[in-house]
Amino acid sequence: MKIDVNSDMGEGFGVYQLCDDDALMRVVSSANIACGFHAGDPDIMTRMVRLAKANGVGIGAHPGFPDRQGFGRKALPFSAQQIRQQVLYQLGALSAIAKAEGAVVAHVSFHAAMGNQINADESLALLVMRAIKSVDPQLIIFSQPDTPIELAAKACGMQSITLFLADRAYDPRGQLVARGIAGAVITDEAAVRARVRQFLLSGTVATLDGPVIPVRARSILIHSDTPGSLGLARIVRSEIEANGAAVAPAAEVLA
Amino acid sequence: MKIDVNSDMGEGFGVYQLCDDDALMRVVSSANIACGFHAGDPDIMTRMVRLAKANGVGIGAHPGFPDRQGFGRKALPFSAQQIRQQVLYQLGALSAIAKAEGAVVAHVSFHAAMGNQINADESLALLVMRAIKSVDPQLIIFSQPDTPIELAAKACGMQSITLFLADRAYDPRGQLVARGIAGAVITDEAAVRARVRQFLLSGTVATLDGPVIPVRARSILIHSDTPGSLGLARIVRSEIEANGAAVAPAAEVLA
Amino acid sequence: MKIDVNSDMGEGFGVYQLCDDDALMRVVSSANIACGFHAGDPDIMTRMVRLAKANGVGIGAHPGFPDRQGFGRKALPFSAQQIRQQVLYQLGALSAIAKAEGAVVAHVSFHAAMGNQINADESLALLVMRAIKSVDPQLIIFSQPDTPIELAAKACGMQSITLFLADRAYDPRGQLVARGIAGAVITDEAAVRARVRQFLLSGTVATLDGPVIPVRARSILIHSDTPGSLGLARIVRSEIEANGAAVAPAAEVLA
Amino acid sequence: MKIDVNSDMGEGFGVYQLCDDDALMRVVSSANIACGFHAGDPDIMTRMVRLAKANGVGIGAHPGFPDRQGFGRKALPFSAQQIRQQVLYQLGALSAIAKAEGAVVAHVSFHAAMGNQINADESLALLVMRAIKSVDPQLIIFSQPDTPIELAAKACGMQSITLFLADRAYDPRGQLVARGIAGAVITDEAAVRARVRQFLLSGTVATLDGPVIPVRARSILIHSDTPGSLGLARIVRSEIEANGAAVAPAAEVLA
Repeated sequence: MKIDVNSDMGEGFGVYQLCDDDALMRVVSSANIACGFHAGDPDIMTRMVRLAKANGVGIGAHPGFPDRQGFGRKALPFSAQQIRQQVLYQLGALSAIAKAEGAVVAHVSFHAAMGNQINADESLALLVMRAIKSVDPQLIIFSQPDTPIELAAKACGMQSITLFLADRAYDPRGQLVARGIAGAVITDEAAVRARVRQFLLSGTVATLDGPVIPVRARSILIHSDTPGSLGLARIVRSEIEANGAAVAPAAEVLA
Repeated sequence: MKIDVNSDMGEGFGVYQLCDDDALMRVVSSANIACGFHAGDPDIMTRMVRLAKANGVGIGAHPGFPDRQGFGRKALPFSAQQIRQQVLYQLGALSAIAKAEGAVVAHVSFHAAMGNQINADESLALLVMRAIKSVDPQLIIFSQPDTPIELAAKACGMQSITLFLADRAYDPRGQLVARGIAGAVITDEAAVRARVRQFLLSGTVATLDGPVIPVRARSILIHSDTPGSLGLARIVRSEIEANGAAVAPAAEVLA
Repeated sequence: MKIDVNSDMGEGFGVYQLCDDDALMRVVSSANIACGFHAGDPDIMTRMVRLAKANGVGIGAHPGFPDRQGFGRKALPFSAQQIRQQVLYQLGALSAIAKAEGAVVAHVSFHAAMGNQINADESLALLVMRAIKSVDPQLIIFSQPDTPIELAAKACGMQSITLFLADRAYDPRGQLVARGIAGAVITDEAAVRARVRQFLLSGTVATLDGPVIPVRARSILIHSDTPGSLGLARIVRSEIEANGAAVAPAAEVLA
Repeated sequence: MKIDVNSDMGEGFGVYQLCDDDALMRVVSSANIACGFHAGDPDIMTRMVRLAKANGVGIGAHPGFPDRQGFGRKALPFSAQQIRQQVLYQLGALSAIAKAEGAVVAHVSFHAAMGNQINADESLALLVMRAIKSVDPQLIIFSQPDTPIELAAKACGMQSITLFLADRAYDPRGQLVARGIAGAVITDEAAVRARVRQFLLSGTVATLDGPVIPVRARSILIHSDTPGSLGLARIVRSEIEANGAAVAPAAEVLA
């Protein structure tokens, strides 16, 4: 069995770095590269593409809202058309940078508030998905299971891959526990290791103060801005391999 | 004979407009669309692409330096790699927006200080041109004649088209007179009409306080921020047609 | 009787201009100067301060949300503390620029979405007002009558002046009709003249499809981005003078 | 004897942090607070002012060029007037934030490329200094000794304090060795300790591959973005105290 390990990458800006992208790129199999709106810039994007290519890592666009100060986490009142155009702009920018490096953008993973807003509106999800498909119908869409984003991808005949978040607590309905709540972000290495093992062996996760629930996923996400993200990603990878599975980019997982 | 008429378009930002893009789009045959760095934004870019498509106008990327306050006219100390990445980013962004509208980017025309810097460095011009070719080898490069940009396009085996600037004065060496100098920008309609006619009939232009010199060009540029640009563009178009030539996008001119 | 005529000024950015600030500055008695967040920049602010000083116009800070692309009109989810800090930052920036020109900031007028948000929350209005008072207790607060902003100014012991909007329709409750609704923005010169005269003679305004209501105001606002704003402002001024009143900055009106 | 220890503070942006400002604020006696152009934002500035006030640290404005991506280190072709306005804008913004916290801006320290450009032009230095004086004639100017900035401060009758850079190598002429050169940035704790001791005892510094030279300074600067800056600042402070001097803000040092 093959499992993808993905992380948001290149989320620094100018002199600022959020994590050790170079080290993390040697651990993940898919990189969701910030595209210059919530984070990243053309120089960082180029460096990420080169790193991903050198490490056999799948390259993905990680579009977000144009809001550096809020890191794309603020809910902003953009119209559906504006969000469609923002996604296209960022996806295209990364695609051209990848092409010039002899690489190709393989997937799209939405960032924070932009992803939330698309998931809150089925018609917006369809609008965005059709736009993405017109750029490249082979793009794989990363999503939480059973969301408008996943459904829109399927409705458009595009491939999608669903995520298990190893560093974020779930509630009994399978939703993520909000960042502000105690226990929402899991940074304990043993806890992350146990969650990955349980996911691999039984396809389930223990919810915060609740029952065990099934998880349908083929890719494990580690947020690069979670404290200790590099160590956590290594644990995810080693646990996958210890359980007899292989870490591979989304396109291989779905092949 | 076919002649292209091009103008920089979509150079507003948010509520700001530089010219009547809608009206101008009905006059030109090629639109150099600002890509969100010196001017423009994803919404304006989308509107420009739709307008261009509706009017049969050739769509071009008009990349510039990331400097809204200076409108991309300041000479900024970016490295060659940074300029390469800025061009790719902007070209890719417009390409994706065009694709989603069922259109295609046909050409590239550099803006102001970015163009000047590329023209000041043959190795930079080659670096940028190879990057552009890797995105799409069919792209047509707009340039002044005999510049590093034109030479780099030729060296890469890419098509280029050279410009006659109907609204800017030339010096005896065929260079543009700097904007600060009296007479550099020509806004008189009769003067523009006469210049276009002379260019069409004899392939020459009268220089500022100097001799008549030959001009090798297949496209006439009207700067959209020249006062009265819409009227000037109409004069250019009517003068071309009055002299028995046809106005057509660069791809048709070169076909 | 003295009446103030005020307008938002310096709302361009870089090469962009919204209105003819130079001409408008010769008509108004108070200038609300954009402070570099929703519009304006240090160069434009300096130019506005010099123009205001030369024309005896009262200088005011016109702080807005940090959102150039949306011109400060988008409702953005900033916290109360963030809005407080944004107001202080912009007010301080203009104050220093004014001081260096031998001038002084005399008033504060909030822009668009920032003003709406402050008016939607009495405790925020108090928080902001106390912060403004700590910068300079002599500052005059511009506001619509009977709003949290006016009440907060009074509660802090600060001077305030209320506005009549000559170019915007009112509803029967005395609220502005939203910009999207037909008739909300009044650009007809005769209509503006009649509204000003009625306001001066009877202290009332005819609402959109409704009854005549009283208006408590000592300053008339013309939005500089209303089409034909310069002509409208001239009409306001001439109508005031034709009715035997004098146009004067807010500080003189309140003296 | 009293010696000031200063550091650039609040140079993060949004989610990004450059150093542990909270810890560093308990070590230094003067904080040069970024003002939202090259780094910082109104929220961070407010937090820095509160921290400085709580720790008895002198509050300074640290204005830079409007260039977040380049962190204010790029030489940008702004005019003298533009630089004057940029300094005023940033100084005023911090001053208002400080006032609202019951604090006062005590000094000005220019950042990177802005400082270099002012130091490269005596008339610019005078222009900027006169503008600063018009905001508050009590402001203390931080500078390298014998620079146009120091001379302009003296010419304007303003107080200045000169710096010893404990973490940067000097050349035999007393100039800083450029950052790109090996040995330019000193991160070894023992080396920094030795340099501080030598400065305190003999008023000299050993140059890079050169002779010992005299240093005229009353304030020691640790760059907060030097790796290990917090530890280095603690060494500077402890070494000062071990040598019988007291660490105090610039205003007390000069008193």
